[in-house]
Parts: sequence; C-alpha cells; structure tokens
Amino acid sequence: MRGVVMHAPGDVRVEDLPEPTLQQPTDAIIRLAAACICGSDLWPYRGADTITEPKPMGHEYVGVVEQVGADVTEIKVGDFVVGSFFASDNTCEICRAGYQTSCLHRDFPGPSQAQLMRVPLADGTLVATPGVPDDDLIPSLLAASDVLGTGWFGAVAAEAGPGKTVAVVGDGAVGLMAVLAAKELGAERIIAMSRHADRQALARELGATDIVTERGEAGVARVKELTDGLGAHSVVEAVGTQESMLQAIGATRPGGHVGFVGVLHDVAIAGDDIFMTHVHVHGGPAPVRRFLPDLIDRIWQRRIDPGKVFDLTLPLEQAAEGYVAMDQRTATKVLLQP
Amino acid sequence: MRGVVMHAPGDVRVEDLPEPTLQQPTDAIIRLAAACICGSDLWPYRGADTITEPKPMGHEYVGVVEQVGADVTEIKVGDFVVGSFFASDNTCEICRAGYQTSCLHRDFPGPSQAQLMRVPLADGTLVATPGVPDDDLIPSLLAASDVLGTGWFGAVAAEAGPGKTVAVVGDGAVGLMAVLAAKELGAERIIAMSRHADRQALARELGATDIVTERGEAGVARVKELTDGLGAHSVVEAVGTQESMLQAIGATRPGGHVGFVGVLHDVAIAGDDIFMTHVHVHGGPAPVRRFLPDLIDRIWQRRIDPGKVFDLTLPLEQAAEGYVAMDQRTATKVLLQP
Repeated sequence: MRGVVMHAPGDVRVEDLPEPTLQQPTDAIIRLAAACICGSDLWPYRGADTITEPKPMGHEYVGVVEQVGADVTEIKVGDFVVGSFFASDNTCEICRAGYQTSCLHRDFPGPSQAQLMRVPLADGTLVATPGVPDDDLIPSLLAASDVLGTGWFGAVAAEAGPGKTVAVVGDGAVGLMAVLAAKELGAERIIAMSRHADRQALARELGATDIVTERGEAGVARVKELTDGLGAHSVVEAVGTQESMLQAIGATRPGGHVGFVGVLHDVAIAGDDIFMTHVHVHGGPAPVRRFLPDLIDRIWQRRIDPGKVFDLTLPLEQAAEGYVAMDQRTATKVLLQP
Repeated sequence: MRGVVMHAPGDVRVEDLPEPTLQQPTDAIIRLAAACICGSDLWPYRGADTITEPKPMGHEYVGVVEQVGADVTEIKVGDFVVGSFFASDNTCEICRAGYQTSCLHRDFPGPSQAQLMRVPLADGTLVATPGVPDDDLIPSLLAASDVLGTGWFGAVAAEAGPGKTVAVVGDGAVGLMAVLAAKELGAERIIAMSRHADRQALARELGATDIVTERGEAGVARVKELTDGLGAHSVVEAVGTQESMLQAIGATRPGGHVGFVGVLHDVAIAGDDIFMTHVHVHGGPAPVRRFLPDLIDRIWQRRIDPGKVFDLTLPLEQAAEGYVAMDQRTATKVLLQP
C-alpha cells in the first residue's frame, strides 16, 4: 500500500509500505476514507522534534473496517468508524473518568496517512457512525478524530458555557475548533486571537464575536479591555509555546479557567503565574474518545460543520504539497484522500 | 499598644506601637481576642524572604469591634468578628465569584499580632459571630481566619468530596486543616503525608485514614500503591516548595485535581508535568472569606474543632518564644493572647 513517510525535516515522501496486519486479537484494520496532516506534524517537519529514523506519519482517521481480531465484539467488518490518536480500552477506571488518553492500556494506532491502518483496542477506540456517511460529512467526521475533539476538550477544560466570555489563543485548526466548541457549549462571547484575515473570517463564521490581533502582553491587555478589566472567564490555549501559555494565563480572570491543548514545547510555568492569578489550569492530550459519540451525533444531524477547517484537499500521493502548504500557512488544514 | 515586630531573621520583639486609627470611612478597628503565628511568618524569620525594615507581624485575627468608619453599615461596634488576611469588598464581580483574595479593591488588614488592629473594607471583610463566643471556641474561630480557611480552600480546589481519595502533602497547620476539611467534605479516604508522630496522631484524629511517611518520588510511589496504582483523586499541596508541588502532581491520578495553598517559593512547573499527567491545578491565596460564614457555623454548632491545631498558647509578650517553637517544630501553631 501507499503511505506517507517523513525522512527528515522538510523531507516527506509517499512510498510503498507493507500492509498492516492484525497483531492482537483486539485489533482492527481499517481502510482509510480520509486522513489529514496535523499541526503537530509540523514540529518534526520544522526540525523542532528530532527524527531519528524514517517515520510513517498520521494519527487522524476515518474509514471502513476491513478486518477485526477474534476478541473484537462491538466493531464489525464494514462499519464506518472514527477513532482518535490514542487507542484506549474505554473500560479502565481512568477511561471511565473520561481520560481515555491516559488509559491504563493505551496504545498507538496508525500510522494513518496511508491506505490501510491498524487500530489497537478497536472496541474501546473506535466509534461507528449510524451508517455510511454522505461524502460531504467525511471532512467533519475526520475533524472529530482530532482537531474538533481537541478544541472541544480545550473548551470543556476551560469550562466554556452559558454566560461565559471565552478567549481562544491560537488560530490554527484546533483554535478554530475551540471557537466552534465554545459556541456549541453556549458561551456568550467568544474572543478569537488571530492575526490572519482568512482565519479571522472563519473564526467569525464558527462563532467568534470579537477578534484580537495583538499577542503577548498587548494581547492580554486587549482581552482585559474587552472584559471590564477582568479578563475572560475561560481561555483555551491552542499553541503550546511559553508565550502563548503566559498569554492564556494572563488573559484569564481570577478564578477563571485555562484549558490548554497545544502540545507544550519547552514551557515552564512559574509558581507566581498560577499562585497569585487564581486561575485553574487543565489540559493535555485531549481525550477525544470521551466526546466522539456526541460529536458524531452533532455532525450526523448537520448541527455543526467542522469540516470547514479543511481548506485544501489533496490525493495522498501529493501529501508533500500538503506539508508545504501547512508549513507556509497557505492552508490551515489539509485533507488527504487515499 | 503592644505589638510584635520582626527586625531581622530570628529577631522578633514585642514593642510599643502607635494605636491604629480609622483611615477610611470603610475601616474598622478591632481589639484582638486572639492572634497567632503563621507558617508563612517563618519564611522571613528563616531569611527566605527579605526584611528591609522592621515589620509589624500578623494577619490572623478574631476580636471585638471598637470603632467603625462612617460608611460601615453591616458591622457594629461590639460585634465579635472573624476576618482573613486580605480585606475585600465582597461585592465586586471577582468577590461574587468567590475569589475575595483577588478582590478588585483588596487591601491589607493588620498587623494582627498586637492589641488593636485596623481592618479596611470592614463590611466586606469581617464576619460577625452569632454572639459572644465561649472562650473554648476562640481558638477554632481564630483557626477559621487563616489555616482552616486555607486548608478548606485547598480541599475544595482539589475537589475533595464523597467517594474520593484525598492526599495531603504537608503536615503543618494548613495541611492538618485540609485533612479536617476533606473529612467534612465527605472524602472516603484521606492520606496524610507526614513524618512527625505528633502530627500523624492529630491527622488521624482529624480524619486521616492512612499515613504516608515517605517524601518525593518514594511518597508518590506509596500513594500509588495505596490507590491501585492510579494516584489520589484529589491532592492538597500545603508546603509550597518545588519538591512538594511535584510530589502533589505525581500523587494525583490522570483527571484528578491538585489544590495548592502553600505559598510557592521558587517553584516552576515544567509543561510536561501538567500536560501528560492530565491533572487539574488550582490554588493561590485562599479566599477564606468565601468559606467564613459556613466555617463559623460549623464551629458554633461544635461540629468541628479546628482549634486543636494550636498546641501552644502564649501571652503576646512572649511572642518571640512562639516563633522559636514553630521554627524548631516543637509547636505546630502558636496562639497569642494580647
């Protein structure tokens, strides 16, 4: 089969790879209907994460189940399924508390930028859609696999809800999905922090009521101006740098909540930044599985259209072009068709 | 009047000081019934906080109102009152959200290790008891002023409650009060982390079901052993050092809550410590005022006896001995009688 392999920063190739096989009786093999490139794939692409050997890429996926192991009972061959970037049993105490990305038996699915992929713990990891989706729903279901689920967790971790002012730091796909999530969760006012006109427009379309273009301390000051000097009740951090984390904490009012979902890179939070500010801080790898049934339902009912976040669709064979587009910010999120 | 002044690390004296006077129409002057020495007073006493000029000490207090300013309407002369270490208007949006220690108009009462003290924003800051308390209730009401309110906030921030396993890092007065709070809030299991036999005994008396004597990584490992390898649901951090903060985070299960109330000294939290662990982190200067009416009621009904935390009572004139006793850990908490 064909699949995407990163050989070095900036060097992404589509190659012949061995087809995945069932390794455990709890595995499933799925044929990808769509996959995509993640903002986090840009960390190694830009050299910020080290690549020690050729690395097959991808962790977002929707597709049709082709094979299941002997112990798989819920998921059936032929099901159209959505999964997330960690496999989880969905039965351990941590999963039942809603933290499937910290499952006691968590494992890695994928790679998904390919024609076929292996998913461990299939019954716990995969959620079947009510039927075969119309083609126009596939981008939205694929978004649920990661960026929507992650943005949603960020908004939930920030306790977005009715009567709340929510600010979102970061206008990448996850930040934009956090705007959508805040809107769905009933937030009264949603401040998107973005410098890019196209992303500002999409943020407004998804529910943002205000745009702040400033960053860092100036961004914090602007959010405070918009909130009677208090700061937002809820702030989603969707970048993962020291500056963005401090921007998120600074933009939150005392007693407010920071939900952070950007993969943190070289971030250290000084005690005073969280002691005297009285903010709540919660985040990490989003337990997308917690939200998948609800997200699939919202998509299936056509109440939300998170697929809008994909602004470039390419055949899998042209994946390298997709990496360039995301790296150069000419695309926010690239969908790959296997 | 007589009052305690710290001149340098280890140098505490009781001296003649000018009597406080009303400075704002929202002030009150109270005559102290009791004051005490705080664990945080040991930071400057031990040289960890700099002292640039002689510093009158004390921020915990109960007493009788002697004078009120023209704009004080709720608090009356003759009321027996309890207050906390920040003055707050209790009407601003931040106060109404329960974060009176981040009140938009917050101010500093005190100093309280004296015969008289000034309390700004008296109507918002002070809570009157239902009547003149019996003498035996005074230590408990004084505890409510800080250590009980702070331990209580730690337990609330850690979301202690029914069905939860709560661990408490730190066996000082605040840690012990967090044990009491966890018990009152309905926690199923309470693990006190303590190396001192007398404090272990008091922790058990206040509600601890388990004692862990190990610290750091060994302490974390022991808490995990006691919790099926998962960690506690709720951990209260009541020390304020890098080691204790990491111990608290490490002892918390994924999705669990760290409530930190130790005044942080040179603490920095690495991104990975909160990203991959999935813990919630919340704390800061305890908004004691939020809890005071409830705490006073529990004390007045004799449902709780937090005054047990005072294991040495001295006349104000002997305050220096009290500092020595707390510094050398021969006393957990010292009550001063003006």
